[in-house]
Amino acid sequence: MTQSTIDFRSDNCGRAAPELLEALVTANTGTELGYGADSFTAALQARLADVFETPVRVYPVPTGTAANAVALAASCTPFGAVYCSADAHINTAECNATSFFGGGTKLTPVAGPHGKVDPAALESAIVTAGKGLAHKSQPAAVNLVQATDLGAVYSIDEIAAVAQVAHAHGLKVHMDGARFANALAALGCTPAEMSWRAGVDVLSLGVTKNGGLLADAIVVFNADTATSIGFHLRRAGLVWSKMRFASAQIIAYVENDLWLRLARQANAAAAAIAAQIGGLPGVTLLAPVQANELFIDMAPAALSGLADDGILYYRRGPRLARIVCRWDSSAADVAALVAGIRRHAAAA
Amino acid sequence: MTQSTIDFRSDNCGRAAPELLEALVTANTGTELGYGADSFTAALQARLADVFETPVRVYPVPTGTAANAVALAASCTPFGAVYCSADAHINTAECNATSFFGGGTKLTPVAGPHGKVDPAALESAIVTAGKGLAHKSQPAAVNLVQATDLGAVYSIDEIAAVAQVAHAHGLKVHMDGARFANALAALGCTPAEMSWRAGVDVLSLGVTKNGGLLADAIVVFNADTATSIGFHLRRAGLVWSKMRFASAQIIAYVENDLWLRLARQANAAAAAIAAQIGGLPGVTLLAPVQANELFIDMAPAALSGLADDGILYYRRGPRLARIVCRWDSSAADVAALVAGIRRHAAAA
Amino acid sequence: MTQSTIDFRSDNCGRAAPELLEALVTANTGTELGYGADSFTAALQARLADVFETPVRVYPVPTGTAANAVALAASCTPFGAVYCSADAHINTAECNATSFFGGGTKLTPVAGPHGKVDPAALESAIVTAGKGLAHKSQPAAVNLVQATDLGAVYSIDEIAAVAQVAHAHGLKVHMDGARFANALAALGCTPAEMSWRAGVDVLSLGVTKNGGLLADAIVVFNADTATSIGFHLRRAGLVWSKMRFASAQIIAYVENDLWLRLARQANAAAAAIAAQIGGLPGVTLLAPVQANELFIDMAPAALSGLADDGILYYRRGPRLARIVCRWDSSAADVAALVAGIRRHAAAA
Amino acid sequence: MTQSTIDFRSDNCGRAAPELLEALVTANTGTELGYGADSFTAALQARLADVFETPVRVYPVPTGTAANAVALAASCTPFGAVYCSADAHINTAECNATSFFGGGTKLTPVAGPHGKVDPAALESAIVTAGKGLAHKSQPAAVNLVQATDLGAVYSIDEIAAVAQVAHAHGLKVHMDGARFANALAALGCTPAEMSWRAGVDVLSLGVTKNGGLLADAIVVFNADTATSIGFHLRRAGLVWSKMRFASAQIIAYVENDLWLRLARQANAAAAAIAAQIGGLPGVTLLAPVQANELFIDMAPAALSGLADDGILYYRRGPRLARIVCRWDSSAADVAALVAGIRRHAAAA
Repeated sequence: MTQSTIDFRSDNCGRAAPELLEALVTANTGTELGYGADSFTAALQARLADVFETPVRVYPVPTGTAANAVALAASCTPFGAVYCSADAHINTAECNATSFFGGGTKLTPVAGPHGKVDPAALESAIVTAGKGLAHKSQPAAVNLVQATDLGAVYSIDEIAAVAQVAHAHGLKVHMDGARFANALAALGCTPAEMSWRAGVDVLSLGVTKNGGLLADAIVVFNADTATSIGFHLRRAGLVWSKMRFASAQIIAYVENDLWLRLARQANAAAAAIAAQIGGLPGVTLLAPVQANELFIDMAPAALSGLADDGILYYRRGPRLARIVCRWDSSAADVAALVAGIRRHAAAA
Repeated sequence: MTQSTIDFRSDNCGRAAPELLEALVTANTGTELGYGADSFTAALQARLADVFETPVRVYPVPTGTAANAVALAASCTPFGAVYCSADAHINTAECNATSFFGGGTKLTPVAGPHGKVDPAALESAIVTAGKGLAHKSQPAAVNLVQATDLGAVYSIDEIAAVAQVAHAHGLKVHMDGARFANALAALGCTPAEMSWRAGVDVLSLGVTKNGGLLADAIVVFNADTATSIGFHLRRAGLVWSKMRFASAQIIAYVENDLWLRLARQANAAAAAIAAQIGGLPGVTLLAPVQANELFIDMAPAALSGLADDGILYYRRGPRLARIVCRWDSSAADVAALVAGIRRHAAAA
Repeated sequence: MTQSTIDFRSDNCGRAAPELLEALVTANTGTELGYGADSFTAALQARLADVFETPVRVYPVPTGTAANAVALAASCTPFGAVYCSADAHINTAECNATSFFGGGTKLTPVAGPHGKVDPAALESAIVTAGKGLAHKSQPAAVNLVQATDLGAVYSIDEIAAVAQVAHAHGLKVHMDGARFANALAALGCTPAEMSWRAGVDVLSLGVTKNGGLLADAIVVFNADTATSIGFHLRRAGLVWSKMRFASAQIIAYVENDLWLRLARQANAAAAAIAAQIGGLPGVTLLAPVQANELFIDMAPAALSGLADDGILYYRRGPRLARIVCRWDSSAADVAALVAGIRRHAAAA
Repeated sequence: MTQSTIDFRSDNCGRAAPELLEALVTANTGTELGYGADSFTAALQARLADVFETPVRVYPVPTGTAANAVALAASCTPFGAVYCSADAHINTAECNATSFFGGGTKLTPVAGPHGKVDPAALESAIVTAGKGLAHKSQPAAVNLVQATDLGAVYSIDEIAAVAQVAHAHGLKVHMDGARFANALAALGCTPAEMSWRAGVDVLSLGVTKNGGLLADAIVVFNADTATSIGFHLRRAGLVWSKMRFASAQIIAYVENDLWLRLARQANAAAAAIAAQIGGLPGVTLLAPVQANELFIDMAPAALSGLADDGILYYRRGPRLARIVCRWDSSAADVAALVAGIRRHAAAA
């Protein structure tokens, strides 16, 4: 094995779970109507209604960015403001898709620890936003990322606290669940508890990062929000004509708790790394490691040393490494990374 | 076999070619960078450069609508006008995606036979459009659908004639090639001859309708147009993070002329139907059957009779049926359809 | 007097009524709150409520294009379709402002005589539009131009017939009243009869073309539509901070029936021309002359002769002249134009 | 005199300079072409070319928001980022017009003192923005507000330092000159020195706040930027058909240094207030008073006391008052305000 196979760059660098590929083969029989009028997409609605213990409307989409931007566009007027963590993916990594889909929506960062939105900070932002004043983008929705972009996980109470503030002021609650399964595995709660029961109106359900290949989904708990989503998606070229091949993936993803098994593997790898480097001198974790990501502060030379060893990861600053564990991250890779961190941290 | 399996509703009702599913399995090994920085996407660039005999920039996208709208957005200013056939998919079936992506682009139908743009009509439309006048959407691009939405195929000379008018006035030429392979098989020419050599600047390369499952592509021949496409796609949520699984499909699609073999099968089925119903009393074809679609004018009672027999197709008007043949349309289905048309046309 | 003063090019080539300039001077005292919170704008609401015999919400705006586009944006979702005459100003002369403000709204021309929308053609367009189908822009509003862009005037019954079709299908009715006063003068009815009583939900009230200088207005009869207009206007830079100077103009415009007096002068000039050229050989009027515009078909040489005489007008085609009369068109100018037409028509 | 006439709420609460109203009357003769093709608009181009000592392209517009948003839209692609002070008007008070006009432009606040953009902070923001990465809004333009939204004035060197950073990275430099004349009067330099000679590419030239009534202007120094402005304006309903009445105002505004005389009056009033309250205990100025605005920190009870006295101003926080002086602020009003502040500050 060469060192170049030690890859902690991103969840999306990894493989698809074989079960999802098998689902594609299984779905490849007979004819089906296009654009979501097929039997697989119908079955998906029922399947996720079971999973979430409530009626839902599910829209498979190609990417998490599409899910986030359309979910928010359907929750806002064009002059709406969306509150989020400054670290949120919609704020840092989606080329302002929220504003494009929304027709001019404003992203408004709100303070909070570890990539979370703090309820008090949200309350303060909303009440000083100038509601009703035409000079101001109008508070419309809040975006929570679960697990957060710094690898932490909202507790159910934390989600509910944010949702309570939002709903009290008439805002919709959107959860970016790109790593929903990782957070679910971390909390050990039900999907319902971590979503609509805590106040989430619309969810971007991540599949790709956790063993998927080409599909994620929007899951709508609030019927009002759903009305326009189909049109937003269609005119953005986000509705596959052979939708069955997307829906079949997502059905397989939740079948027999596959999503949880995959997420637990990724989380366990991250936890193992955290446990072994936690106390090391010169090694600081930016946030609690609760899902499958670690953000590690180390000396620049130590970080360069890791890279020189052929360990692949993203450097987010001179002293900051992002390490992402996948469902298919191997124990050997974890061991090599830990050994590398130990060696280079000691030397730095 | 029940009659309900006789399905001529749409290309997208059919199966994926097994070769594309196999390509997914083959691609599912090792780690790869995300968002198109993977080795499969790199290989795709080279592969299509070979196919088109010129350097190209290829962007795999989830749908043909995405391909069309982004290709046109990258070819226009927000106050641009796009000329197309009134029957063009961008005008009739994409929920005005062109205008959404373009930020207010105006679609301007131009006359022409069988879903084509007539060069003289295009010339006339451009010269009376008020170029330079701020009151008027500015001529920016022309959209050709190959094969057309009425089942006809532009000859190479016809494409070149439209492109010549467009280029003479500074417009870009976009080809909606949702059925590019069907047209290619019909003309028996090379991909280069039917695209950039005839003046096409940017192509929506259809895969889904012809044995694909979840991916189509934008193929850019004109480097100017390519500059902004990556940004348009990213902020629209149209860039898969696990792009290798899209690129691998498209590589398989053109490998060993698979695309042409599939298209020939679909075209042959359509030609067989046309040949057998061509002279029947009470049966009129709206356009020459040159690819895989037939638009058939029959008495309303005859159309209802077909539907009552369990033959699936789309009725586009009281007297108008659209029949779409697929790569996996069977000889038995073709025979059943022809028999049905004969019987009901005679009775009506 | 030089020939260059004979000017029939457009309503907007003329002067402002002195009463409106005086109103500016009168308004220029003391301090007032900005952005429409001033006492003049408040008075304007009350004044137009009197004029229209119903509560209204009035938004002064800089231009008719702004009025039209915002009125329609507030009446549509981004995936809406707006029906209008092919000759409508929003379709021919506003650089697709409707689509820009609406975020991708589609303009859909509907047949009808003399720049009008025919109710039956509208009904047919709506029922075949694919309501509820995500592939299709959704019927949202209809635009009537009163007087029309070809110089005709809808009767009250004609407006009501269009509105009845629109409302039966859930569409809003927008009247582009760039020449509202001209039509009002022509019909001799009340403003209420020609607007909300006939089914109009929102009106672009033209002021500029009929003696105004820098302001028109949106008049909302339907409270639902008004909700978002303030935000649409503000973020488009269409809300003056010193709004009093716009509102004062519009108050003066309707005071003592000034608007009707001005409109009658313009209409009378057009009627005089029509009466004197009506039966001439080689002279054909494209539409009944009911307001202040004439569209005259004449031999190309005759049109050139008029231009050579120094009579200013717009040539809309080789044989087509548009003649616009203003409140300040003089009897001498009218006589000169008529004489010119007679002479050149006879010679051609 | 009643107390209610003591009004320091905003520049836009005041009157128009009589010279501008007279210009309207003077312009109200003869006929002129519409939409900016008139002789006044032509004269305005020449007049401002003299004023700025360079060829310029001037577009009169109804509001400063329109000027800012269109100037920036013409400087950006839809996926551009605009850097500005967090206090900038485009960020706090224009309902995200920048993003609406730009089609999804992202506003990115940059640190700096007193409402200014700090060049080093700008440099840092640009180099970490991910240029070329499709995940990121692309650095496109920087917005400077002169005078700033906190009442300070950039020195020429400060402008040049920001422009140097911007240009080094290919960004355009936009100056929001809503209070351009106030800053010009403060610096005592030429218009050229404070704009294009310091690196400004496009200027929003404020008129309304300094004695105007219904018009501001975009002044373009960089021909590239001008290309699309006419279209952006037209389709946003921002081009008056009777443009002469806007252009005439602006010509009068700069005639005989009127703009400077008006600005000096407003600045002098602000300076007088600052001089008299500067050293008072319990009274703190948030920024140097260099133009016509003061931001005063006082005890909440003192602020309430001022309001109870009938002195009108905007309260921007429990302890923060904004005081705006106008060209027509009287010495008596200034004296009353100073007396009030003294009395209430002493009592608090």
